[in-house]
Amino acid sequence: MSLLIVGSVAFDAIETPFGKTDKIIGGAGTFIALSASNYVSDQRIVSVVGEDFPQSMLDLLQAKGVNLDGLQIKQGEKTFFWSGRYHNDMNSRDTLITELNVLEHFDPIIPEAYQGVDYVMLGNLSPQVQRQVVERLHERPKLVAMDTMNFWMDIAMDDLKQTLALVDVLFVNDEEARQLSGEYSLVKAAKVIRAMGPHTLVIKKGEHGALLFQDEKVFFAPALPLEEVFDPTGAGDTFAGGFMGYIAATGDTSFNNMKRAIIAGSALASFCVEKFGTERLLDLTKEAIEARIEQFVALTDFDMVETVG
Amino acid sequence: MSLLIVGSVAFDAIETPFGKTDKIIGGAGTFIALSASNYVSDQRIVSVVGEDFPQSMLDLLQAKGVNLDGLQIKQGEKTFFWSGRYHNDMNSRDTLITELNVLEHFDPIIPEAYQGVDYVMLGNLSPQVQRQVVERLHERPKLVAMDTMNFWMDIAMDDLKQTLALVDVLFVNDEEARQLSGEYSLVKAAKVIRAMGPHTLVIKKGEHGALLFQDEKVFFAPALPLEEVFDPTGAGDTFAGGFMGYIAATGDTSFNNMKRAIIAGSALASFCVEKFGTERLLDLTKEAIEARIEQFVALTDFDMVETVG
Repeated sequence: MSLLIVGSVAFDAIETPFGKTDKIIGGAGTFIALSASNYVSDQRIVSVVGEDFPQSMLDLLQAKGVNLDGLQIKQGEKTFFWSGRYHNDMNSRDTLITELNVLEHFDPIIPEAYQGVDYVMLGNLSPQVQRQVVERLHERPKLVAMDTMNFWMDIAMDDLKQTLALVDVLFVNDEEARQLSGEYSLVKAAKVIRAMGPHTLVIKKGEHGALLFQDEKVFFAPALPLEEVFDPTGAGDTFAGGFMGYIAATGDTSFNNMKRAIIAGSALASFCVEKFGTERLLDLTKEAIEARIEQFVALTDFDMVETVG
Repeated sequence: MSLLIVGSVAFDAIETPFGKTDKIIGGAGTFIALSASNYVSDQRIVSVVGEDFPQSMLDLLQAKGVNLDGLQIKQGEKTFFWSGRYHNDMNSRDTLITELNVLEHFDPIIPEAYQGVDYVMLGNLSPQVQRQVVERLHERPKLVAMDTMNFWMDIAMDDLKQTLALVDVLFVNDEEARQLSGEYSLVKAAKVIRAMGPHTLVIKKGEHGALLFQDEKVFFAPALPLEEVFDPTGAGDTFAGGFMGYIAATGDTSFNNMKRAIIAGSALASFCVEKFGTERLLDLTKEAIEARIEQFVALTDFDMVETVG
């Protein structure tokens, strides 16, 4: 099955307690595509870069099965650039620089060859752009998922709510779920958010794992306890990319298969944080991923054979 | 098998966003004993109360199989009293009153009938008192577990380390694990703490579940996502009591059985927070506990039948 990705393809410069990078490749679309490519072979991306973006990275995406017909290259313009510094606990960060550049007036054009796509992952972008993509698809895909962030809740809540009404699955972190719903309890927040449109909600809790809500059902996925988080940049996108890659590869949107998709996404995210940017994702084998998934199985596996009392 | 509990039997007065109580029954020893009584029928408690403590509660503990020979009743003295107020997020609280009373000069005398006990749970008390209990047992029990808190790390770290060297299992929360070890990563913290004595470490993360570390093995137990946490008081003690009650009832200290014990403790803690103080624990049926444990099984159960890529 095929997966359409919409998201930034960008430059990042990152500082963590372990070191700092120059401009390296980043962007939600990049992380999602690299992560999903471990499962799905037919990907199509809608994005935009400037003339400064390296052809080598585009070649690499193409080699991983990503169709780039919808990736606009703007001559005379510059690629989106973000720079940030993580605090010692790695759970919070300061944005140092945001240069929107080509993203400022991004018109997400859908190539004709992309029509009829099976699955859609809308990476974090303005809710208006995300909505345009859904509206420009002639046929309703089997499942549309989106990511968003607190920034859009602060400045474009009405827009965001219009887009939420069109999607099936929403990814947010716990603080964003609280802000979006006005509820502190994540169980209550999930009810409020699901009433806004998405039938399925995934709440990402970083080192505390993730929660999957659908109807009255809940699934709690662990995060792998790690000795060191080297660089969290892109972990959430890698998680979502793994999730949607798994769904698209299996063509199964049941709750049970979404649980597996969350584990796949969690495993890929646990690799992402081991090195700067996309470095670790470019270096993955199928065997390494399967071994990591086995660690997740072992981490939560128990059997209540004995009942006593 | 038998379980020896050492811990406060006390009065609490609690304020939460949902209401406030007068003096009600509390104390680590009380929560541990009530929780463990769902699994183990032979319990023995070492504790102290004043003459103001109600006989009815002592009768109730006895009816639940708790031997009170080691519970000292100090005539002319008052029971330990703690009062606290929870903040809106229920994750932090202010202590309003602490009256040590009978706990100030507590000498934990072990009745002769308690000797030969199989399992020991040292509730949060001064590390010196906890150590005295272990030293006064003529035979080494099959497993000795202890709880502690940041307060003792602040004022009695050397004492605490002496006691840690004598125990098998330590319960702490994530902040306490970080303070005790000086490591932010819980994986690194677990290594440092296990080198201090306990071969097994349980890190309680409240709404984020719990981690069990032993040798190179890790187990991640979920917390049940709740609509409302009404009163968190005693949840950690209830968790530890359920854990040690399950271990004592099954007589099995293998890692696999400790996983089941964590689930049992988590299930009981999820009841504890539903009402003020011990109220919900006094009201539990075997059926309700088994149904709650089934919810935990469903919450983390997945099977990675499909491998793709």
